[in-house]
Amino acid sequence: MELWYTEKQTPDFGMTCKINRTLHHEQTEYQTLDVIETGQFGRMLVLDGMVMTTDRDEFVYHEMLTHVGMVTHPHPKRVLVIGGGDGGVIREVLKHPAVEEATLCEIDRRVVEVSQEYFPGIAGALSDSRVNLCFEDGVQHIEAHSDTYDVILVDSTEPIGPAAGLFQESFYRGIYRSLRRDGVMVAQTESPWFNRDLIARVYRDISGLFPVTRFYTASIPTYPSGLWSFTLGSKERDPLAVDPTETAPPETKYYHPSMHPSLFQLPRFVAELTE
Amino acid sequence: MELWYTEKQTPDFGMTCKINRTLHHEQTEYQTLDVIETGQFGRMLVLDGMVMTTDRDEFVYHEMLTHVGMVTHPHPKRVLVIGGGDGGVIREVLKHPAVEEATLCEIDRRVVEVSQEYFPGIAGALSDSRVNLCFEDGVQHIEAHSDTYDVILVDSTEPIGPAAGLFQESFYRGIYRSLRRDGVMVAQTESPWFNRDLIARVYRDISGLFPVTRFYTASIPTYPSGLWSFTLGSKERDPLAVDPTETAPPETKYYHPSMHPSLFQLPRFVAELTE
Repeated sequence: MELWYTEKQTPDFGMTCKINRTLHHEQTEYQTLDVIETGQFGRMLVLDGMVMTTDRDEFVYHEMLTHVGMVTHPHPKRVLVIGGGDGGVIREVLKHPAVEEATLCEIDRRVVEVSQEYFPGIAGALSDSRVNLCFEDGVQHIEAHSDTYDVILVDSTEPIGPAAGLFQESFYRGIYRSLRRDGVMVAQTESPWFNRDLIARVYRDISGLFPVTRFYTASIPTYPSGLWSFTLGSKERDPLAVDPTETAPPETKYYHPSMHPSLFQLPRFVAELTE
Repeated sequence: MELWYTEKQTPDFGMTCKINRTLHHEQTEYQTLDVIETGQFGRMLVLDGMVMTTDRDEFVYHEMLTHVGMVTHPHPKRVLVIGGGDGGVIREVLKHPAVEEATLCEIDRRVVEVSQEYFPGIAGALSDSRVNLCFEDGVQHIEAHSDTYDVILVDSTEPIGPAAGLFQESFYRGIYRSLRRDGVMVAQTESPWFNRDLIARVYRDISGLFPVTRFYTASIPTYPSGLWSFTLGSKERDPLAVDPTETAPPETKYYHPSMHPSLFQLPRFVAELTE
């Protein structure tokens, strides 16, 4: 018998993956949580039926959400990751030697616990002594921590369910207040093919708050359309004016310093989302 | 009743699309040929069960196979497209005013005829007076036309079935001979996620023949992994040394001159295929 997992990424389109076995299934306080083993992408973490991360392609999302913002800040000592319970973004954050404290604010403790069990290569960094784990709502966390962080990375699920509040203008306003005077934020902002209205609105919201707003994409085969976007807001430094040769960590598989300026050269149909 | 079309893009992975209706189905002399109407991507041309082009995302593949090579050549008067019976690459070629003759060499006449019926926005350019239609095997065509073309674009199907010969070193050798002294070729070369051995071999083959070889990618959601690659061989000019500001056609949706140098800044896991 062949088992296939199919994610309807839109009402009319989806991806389908052959499964070797299901390793874990539960209904947490916030969402359904599955871990499946696939032939194509190794283990997959699935929340509410949507692929969050996989062994084979996780490096793209985690590197690209992290390093562009981290190299934009001149001295990223205190970093906050909102969501991201699998620990992949924290792993990348800790590759920057300037980091003194990396806080993970994940609403669902079970995502962290299950990731530590099934994705040690991703979640292993969560046991680092510089990591501070907070199991609370990201919106509340930033409200309670003004003028605190150098870099805030928003590693949310889709804009429905527990993460709906993480795509609101009021949330970005809270992030602005929670950042110090030269702070930088980066949020994952969905697919330029399938989520065009959302991207245009988020870009408008963030550029209404931050003096510098930049947009870039990366190839992630297990995310809808295979093209994923990130929106960066910065209070002072422009990522375009940064030379990351000295500050980019050497041990990456996707990001590297010489590609940095190229990231902001978008295809026309993508660039028009930011105009 | 809901009908879904599922393409197994690898033995373990696929994409699935809701179908409004099937517009055409036939077995040609060379392959099965289907035209389906989907909610997500409009009409789709499917050969041997693999998506070749769709109304919504066709612009990426056709622009990116065409313009990078065309702007690399100083005066692309005679252009050959091998495969590409849907006419999309020819449409893009004709946007360059230097072109005097654009030859389409498609083995399967039915692909052209069906595309003209169901994809007028793509195939319409095939009735242009500069277009020369040849219904023959690409390998034979280039053998019969040495020192003839300025630019050759290889718009093949996957490296199985009728297109298998279009991924061989002997074929690239034939292309080299068929090009004039400053000629440029570009071939579609599959997914950097799923076809790594093929890409590395083709890159080696082409760089063994051409003084300049370059590799670049583009986001195509209906192709496996969503990331697609192109390999360029040039007898004289390096696309990296070209300023396409004056020569790039204005009416594009993906390619534009200011992104041109950025195209060759590859993610690490892609760049290593060319080392």
